[in-house]
Amino acid sequence: MSESKGGKAAQFGVTPQSVDFNDWYNEVVVKADLADYSPVKGCMVVKPYGYAIWERINRWMEDKFRETGHEGLLFPTLIPLNFMTKEAEHVEGFAPELFTVTRIGTEVLEEPYVMRPTSETIIGHMWAQWLNSYRDLPFLHYQSGAVFRAELRTKLFLRTAEFYWQEGHTAHETREEAMAETLQQLDMYHAFCRDELALPVIRGVKTASERFAGAVETFSIEGMMRDGKALQSGTSHYLGQNFSRAFEVKFQGRDQQEHYAHTTSWAISSRIIGAIIMTHGDDKGLMLPPRIAPYQVVIVPVARKENAEQMYAEADRLAADLKAAGIRVKVDKREGVSNGFKYNDWELRGVPVRIEIGPRDLEQGVVVVKNRNAEEKETLPRAEAVAGMQQRLDAIQAYLLQRATDFLIENTVTVDTYEEFKAAIEAGKWVRAFHCGDRESEAQIAEETKAKTRNIPLDGELFGEPEEGGVCVHTGRPAAYGKRVLFGRQY
Amino acid sequence: MSESKGGKAAQFGVTPQSVDFNDWYNEVVVKADLADYSPVKGCMVVKPYGYAIWERINRWMEDKFRETGHEGLLFPTLIPLNFMTKEAEHVEGFAPELFTVTRIGTEVLEEPYVMRPTSETIIGHMWAQWLNSYRDLPFLHYQSGAVFRAELRTKLFLRTAEFYWQEGHTAHETREEAMAETLQQLDMYHAFCRDELALPVIRGVKTASERFAGAVETFSIEGMMRDGKALQSGTSHYLGQNFSRAFEVKFQGRDQQEHYAHTTSWAISSRIIGAIIMTHGDDKGLMLPPRIAPYQVVIVPVARKENAEQMYAEADRLAADLKAAGIRVKVDKREGVSNGFKYNDWELRGVPVRIEIGPRDLEQGVVVVKNRNAEEKETLPRAEAVAGMQQRLDAIQAYLLQRATDFLIENTVTVDTYEEFKAAIEAGKWVRAFHCGDRESEAQIAEETKAKTRNIPLDGELFGEPEEGGVCVHTGRPAAYGKRVLFGRQY
Repeated sequence: MSESKGGKAAQFGVTPQSVDFNDWYNEVVVKADLADYSPVKGCMVVKPYGYAIWERINRWMEDKFRETGHEGLLFPTLIPLNFMTKEAEHVEGFAPELFTVTRIGTEVLEEPYVMRPTSETIIGHMWAQWLNSYRDLPFLHYQSGAVFRAELRTKLFLRTAEFYWQEGHTAHETREEAMAETLQQLDMYHAFCRDELALPVIRGVKTASERFAGAVETFSIEGMMRDGKALQSGTSHYLGQNFSRAFEVKFQGRDQQEHYAHTTSWAISSRIIGAIIMTHGDDKGLMLPPRIAPYQVVIVPVARKENAEQMYAEADRLAADLKAAGIRVKVDKREGVSNGFKYNDWELRGVPVRIEIGPRDLEQGVVVVKNRNAEEKETLPRAEAVAGMQQRLDAIQAYLLQRATDFLIENTVTVDTYEEFKAAIEAGKWVRAFHCGDRESEAQIAEETKAKTRNIPLDGELFGEPEEGGVCVHTGRPAAYGKRVLFGRQY
Repeated sequence: MSESKGGKAAQFGVTPQSVDFNDWYNEVVVKADLADYSPVKGCMVVKPYGYAIWERINRWMEDKFRETGHEGLLFPTLIPLNFMTKEAEHVEGFAPELFTVTRIGTEVLEEPYVMRPTSETIIGHMWAQWLNSYRDLPFLHYQSGAVFRAELRTKLFLRTAEFYWQEGHTAHETREEAMAETLQQLDMYHAFCRDELALPVIRGVKTASERFAGAVETFSIEGMMRDGKALQSGTSHYLGQNFSRAFEVKFQGRDQQEHYAHTTSWAISSRIIGAIIMTHGDDKGLMLPPRIAPYQVVIVPVARKENAEQMYAEADRLAADLKAAGIRVKVDKREGVSNGFKYNDWELRGVPVRIEIGPRDLEQGVVVVKNRNAEEKETLPRAEAVAGMQQRLDAIQAYLLQRATDFLIENTVTVDTYEEFKAAIEAGKWVRAFHCGDRESEAQIAEETKAKTRNIPLDGELFGEPEEGGVCVHTGRPAAYGKRVLFGRQY
């Protein structure tokens, strides 16, 4: 990854989170060189440092998909406009956001194309041609690529008109199999977020009004950002037979009768990078979990002109030893910028561990080590720094997950009255409350508090085993769902 | 990768190459399950077996780019239409092929967007914002993704309106550095084709009339297909300062003066899969080079109902042993289809080695091995089959390269008269001839023979050291370029 070579005076200072979290976010994304604004309305440029994170996520996903029997395909980016209208709820959900191609060369198209906002429709169309018998099922497909949905206000990674994902699409013989797949992929996302990104996320089912356009059930993982807002970090949909009926995805069953397939779709998008930033970052900038960091260690040779060669060589040797231990490492040899500049730059960019090595350290056989999440530097024998590095990175990874988990639990309040509800939301918390399940009540709560249902958690993880029964915090009517619903303001 | 589960009666027969090469190609692509036609004009669906090949190519490229200091980014898919017109030759080249977005939701755009046919323009725009000093250079960037160029006649992988590539874009301080980069990447493509895909390709510089729209020099690698036609398999362009002037990509130089950057671009696209098919395939179907094959070995357990369990378990054990040896292997456990069906299916799909294992083989501790490129089966001790597999695959890889190289040399003719030229082209050969360099002469030759200049080979590889001087095979005028030019009909 390139870093600023000093040609532009880097400005490290970012607005403190407590002053304006939104400004903090926007400044960090640009100053850490993750992404930039583009001349295309609502679209971003993902820069090398951001791309390195996304590529790591993408490869992890593709490898996992392959491991679990899923197959990659590439479907066209364009979709005939009339496909979008075949599933009634689907078109209603997406119509306002569609980028429409009406010309090719000088030819005006009779039937326009839209740039895919998601690919259920065109995949359904192809499946209908490929599917004959129950023996052909399941179809376990995914596609990595870009999708397009107009956004009113751009926010890098979080709300961009073009974003990136791996969209999974599967078709099954039975409801049970499709539902099992839906939940399996939800669990996979949950584990990925927890183990790779140090993001504690809550698995749950969405209420009816928050479902994907065309789904029978939508499941989500929800993460809490440092400002207490929720970010829907991934979804998995059981689509029932809605799309298979719309696109004639049918097969001859074991009973010799014709059946419509049960289908699913699921995705995590480049928006998850926003979750990493907003869950772990602090007033110095990014704090990247070691398992996803493009560089896990940066080495700054503390050199003067007269000994630069020697110190660079020492730094390279140290880097080679760390690489041999399987660690991603970068040596910062920029000239014309101070060491202080470099320290601040790498803290802003969230590299988990910095090592400083100077002439005096060299004589003494030590290096200076600074964890991104610590205040103090440590002086360690060189060999120990190398041998203990993986363990150090693991500890930082664990620390970030624990810190985010504690924060989520501390900032989630269980309430039984609407007064408490409003006060907690106003204080930037998530709320666990019973709800009657009425769409209008949900809409009214959203209007009054700006909080929406996040999901109905599937299990007792983080919040303990669910209590049963209760009355609606808003209407006083009997609670639906048999357990508390999670509410919060959202991105 | 899924394979037909017998729900559709697979039809293995393909039109022989000698009867109709075009039909052969179209049938092989679809029957081997590499790709399918889509409901979007000119666009294909890449199916799992084709995607597995593309993913392998893509990862190889991304890893190589990283190794050589190049950085991945993601630029928007859309480009403001007015960007395309800033470089005069560029817009002329691409205008007839542009997919144009004129609406977002219900909003009609004042300034339309085009779906990128290539990204020099938008990257130039961003570089202008990122570049200040010579210290910021070089920019060594690439982007993996889809591009869009309308095609009159669709041919899967070869001519599709949407295709896939990694486009490289670099900016340099000097012409020399940019030219070195251009040639370095050309050499990298050449080595990739030779070593990974077993494709012998000829490196050379394009004549002026065959240059990329906006380039100062275009270099290409050209491969010969089994029908004698040429396929341009990759290009690398030195763009001079054309795009940097159009987009104000300038920097303060070492001399404190302002300079425009020298830029390059280069790409290999998904069309290379067409080259693999048409270079190595035969009348039975695909023949995949082992290094790129999704499965290098397929195991067919020769089982009856009563011993199926046992034979499947044996096949799995054999597969595990091969996997442990680093080999990509598939066990074909499809039921309801004959062994003959499976043999034909995997030959059609070009898997380099098939192993059959039956109850009698098991008793005797042997397996039956069949190379895709051999007529005869071999019976080998099981242990020997495993231990020798990598060497066998390497031999197949070498065989394919040698066969293709021999074919290319045999079917390239050196001529000095236009009569010989026409006869050779008519016979489906490539021609090496002197040419005067006149554009009109080139155009006339193309009209009369359907052969165009492929490139002017950079070195004597395959054809021996270049002769100097000579007169133009078409006009009799003094030859340009100082060596022979390669001509051939093309895809």
